[in-house]
Order: sequence, then C-alpha cells, then structure tokens
Amino acid sequence: MKVVSESCVVIAGVGLIGGSIAAAIRERNPSSQVIGIGRSVEKLRHAAQRGLLTEWYSGQDKLRIPAGSFGVVCLPVDRIAESVRMLADAGCEQVTDAGSVKSMICQQVGEYRTRFIGSHPIAGSERSGHEHADPQLFVNRLCIVTPQNHPEHVVVRVSEFWKSLGMAVRLMTPEEHDRVLALTSHLPHVLASVAAACVTVDQLPFTGTGFRDTSRIAAGSGDLWSSILLGNRSSCIDAIRRAENLLREFREALISEDPVRLRDLWESAAAIRRQLDS
Amino acid sequence: MKVVSESCVVIAGVGLIGGSIAAAIRERNPSSQVIGIGRSVEKLRHAAQRGLLTEWYSGQDKLRIPAGSFGVVCLPVDRIAESVRMLADAGCEQVTDAGSVKSMICQQVGEYRTRFIGSHPIAGSERSGHEHADPQLFVNRLCIVTPQNHPEHVVVRVSEFWKSLGMAVRLMTPEEHDRVLALTSHLPHVLASVAAACVTVDQLPFTGTGFRDTSRIAAGSGDLWSSILLGNRSSCIDAIRRAENLLREFREALISEDPVRLRDLWESAAAIRRQLDS
Repeated sequence: MKVVSESCVVIAGVGLIGGSIAAAIRERNPSSQVIGIGRSVEKLRHAAQRGLLTEWYSGQDKLRIPAGSFGVVCLPVDRIAESVRMLADAGCEQVTDAGSVKSMICQQVGEYRTRFIGSHPIAGSERSGHEHADPQLFVNRLCIVTPQNHPEHVVVRVSEFWKSLGMAVRLMTPEEHDRVLALTSHLPHVLASVAAACVTVDQLPFTGTGFRDTSRIAAGSGDLWSSILLGNRSSCIDAIRRAENLLREFREALISEDPVRLRDLWESAAAIRRQLDS
Repeated sequence: MKVVSESCVVIAGVGLIGGSIAAAIRERNPSSQVIGIGRSVEKLRHAAQRGLLTEWYSGQDKLRIPAGSFGVVCLPVDRIAESVRMLADAGCEQVTDAGSVKSMICQQVGEYRTRFIGSHPIAGSERSGHEHADPQLFVNRLCIVTPQNHPEHVVVRVSEFWKSLGMAVRLMTPEEHDRVLALTSHLPHVLASVAAACVTVDQLPFTGTGFRDTSRIAAGSGDLWSSILLGNRSSCIDAIRRAENLLREFREALISEDPVRLRDLWESAAAIRRQLDS
C-alpha cells in the first residue's frame, strides 16, 4: 500500500467521494491531517467522530489551513470552481477536484488555473453520503488528470496523490476527457433515463433484471445530472445525436424487416460490450 | 412449496430456462416424469445424468409421450410455433411456451391454438445452458399467461403449472403482452445496445459501473435478439420511436441550455425508477 505523500489534505464536500478520499488517506497514513469543509455542521461532526476528519470547518468559520496543503473539491460540478478559488485563497498550494466534467471547470477557475489541475476519479457507488465512505473505493480504478501547461512537478504531485489511494492515472486534456466521458458515462445516464421514462409505474411488475440494470443509474439526482449534462453540453449533444441515429437504424431495420441488418447492429455493439467481461 | 400438478412434463429446449423448469419440477416432485427434447445428444445426456430429465429424445428419435402430458417449449422465439405443433402431434394434451413475444407465436400455431396457450415467465439470467439451471429461478417472479378464448380449465391448468414453480401469474392478451414487454424489456435491450455501440474498445477503460450496468444486456446473442425484436416488430417500432423522441427532448433542452426542462426530464424518469427500489 502506497503511503499518502501529502501531510495535509483539505477536502471540500465530505459526501461519498470526499468521505472515501478521507477514509483512504486516514487508513494509509493515520498521522495525516485531513481537514473537511462543508455546509452541515452535523455531518462534519459525525465524519470527524468516525475518524475521517482531523479538523473541519462549516460555511461560516474562518479557515486556518497549513501552508503547502493539498485541496480536493468533491462537490457537484456547478459548485467546483467557486470552491477551488476559496481553497486557493485560504492557502492551499495545489487544488484538484473530482468532478465528471472538466473543460467548463478549467475555464471557470480563470486566473486560478496555475493552482488547479482537474481530476476525475472514475469510481462511485449508487449510495451517497460519507456514511457510505469506503477507503477501498478507488483501488484499481482509473483517475483521469487533465493538466494544461502545468509544470511537471505539479502534474506529478496531483498524479501521485491519486496513485496513493490505489488508482491508476491517465493524463488527458480537459476537452478530450469531456468527449470521451460524454460517451462512456453521460450518454449511458441519458439512455438509462429514457429506458425508465418509457415505462409507467403500473408496468414495473413486468420488468425483469434487464430493465433493472439498464435503468439503475436513472435513479440519480436530477440537480446533479442536469448540471453534469449542461457542464458537458456540446459533447453531450453530439453523443445524444449519435444515439438517436443508432435508434433510427434499429427502427429502420425493423420497418424493412431486415434480420441481417438487425443482427449486425446488435452484434457490433455486443462485441464491444463482451470485451468488458473478457 | 406447491406440488407440481403435472405427472409428465415434456420440455422442448433444455437450456437455462428449460433446464431450470426441469430442476424446479424434479426438486418439488422427485417422482415426476420430465422428458427433454433437444438437438444435442451430449447435452441431453448430461442433463439426464444431473437428474434434470427422466427421459430424453434428440431430433431423430421417435417420440413416445404418455397421454395427458404437458408440454413447455423453451426455444428461441422463431422456433417455438414449429415445436408446439410437434409436441401436440406427439401427444401432448396441452402445450405452453416461455418466449418473450406472444402475438406472433399465437398466430403461427394456427389451428393448434386450442392446444396452446402462450406464456412468458419473466425470469432469466445472463448465463445460458442447463449447466446453470436453477430450481429457484422462478420463485416470486411473475409469469404472464396469454389465453385467447380458451376454456377456463385449460387456463387454470397452465396457470397452476407456473404457480407450482413459485411464480405469480397475470393473464393478458398476447397483444397486450407485446405492447407492455416492448417497453419493459425489448426497448431496454435496444438502449443497452446503443450505449455499448457508442463506445469504442479503446474507451472501455474510461467506463465505470454505470456503463457496465446500463449496457450489460447488450452482450446477449444477436440471433436471439434480432428474432425477438422482429417477432414484436410493430410494438418495438413504436417503443423505439418514443425513445428517439425523448432523446431529442434531452438534446433540445441542452441546445437551449434549459436546466429546468432538463431537470424535469430527468426527474420524471427517476421517479419511476426509484419505485423499483422502494
């Protein structure tokens, strides 16, 4: 198990992801300092009682952050840039985040961009809240780190942080991240939502495990997902158009009663999906 | 545990579903006769050795079926009607099936319709083959039975058969079944396939559990699924058109940067999906 290189990590947003980062740091280095920042005094106090945080601040408190601290913003995508600025102003030397969109956030941080590199740890759970924090959540998962002309030592610092939680790291531009994630994550969420929307509550008894799995992620928060889709707007528009075209191909193959075309459409997708289980 | 009322059940197609029916019958009534019919001598022999079948016939053999036997066809949808006729001709008093489409099969059986009532046990697994047969596969799951002017005692007989495997039974017309299942099962399969098709193999490392679940059922067989979609052609065309319209609504909400519309679209689907877990 890698030792966490940071002596003080400040986490803004102590939910499932922030709480799991805290848990992973504290497990790997019990003497490390983990400062939590959040809105709810009750939740922060509870996270501290569980040993996830060594110190915490709620909205009203004046931050006292040790020099050289490393900040991680684990908030919904529309609140990340603001929090990055706040952490940098309070004295965090380097800040990263865990948001599912990157270009928008990198633009929004503006002149703070030298102090900020965006990250996207691809890990999660259908559960939320630090009560479900899991120090193993990141182990053997991938984190995308998106530097933009940052000096090498800064990129290394951010990458080493995620590696110390057990992750593999891939570097990409923010734009490349957003194009890929539109297809690998954001579009699947929209398709899951469409699957759920086409069924009425009366028809739910006639669903099986297929519907259950396909639509699972449609149960997420509407605020969260409308922010993510809007935060990756142009790539999501392209991805949805692609899905519409494929659906039209399925429909046209059915209209023309073309079993060969239908089978080809199915098999080319199946070949990709089967790679995941192989 | 209900006793299986049938003293002799003939199963055409001893894969996961046929094998699980055999396993459930044999577990609930070890003295029952279960006759398997299939193509592969090796697989049938193996199923008999495992105790799933008391007797078996491969394609070439002349069937000897006790009078009053109950037949269940567990084959891909494009081979069901032919097998129904074969079982009826061989002496099965009553025949049903386990296919995912119903109107087409009810039409295809033609003059055999008095001897056939279509069924659709909503149960399955991503695994196939009688090696994965599970006598509990049907317990607490729903079976749709689709009578058409059949006498009451025949409907009761077919319903009791499924109930004896642990299922709840709902009666519907074949057409109603197909309309509902197009939305609860066939469309989700197409959407899963679209989710998989929009990702390249190179991008698979950037998928998470969301993509994995949403696309899981896209790994199924192309022959099987092109037959099912074509077998429920007009309802599937309608269902796909509905999904295209919803995708267009998502895309238009993004184009017009309308967070309220996007959130409403998401939440109306999420409200339905959340019912499944409540």
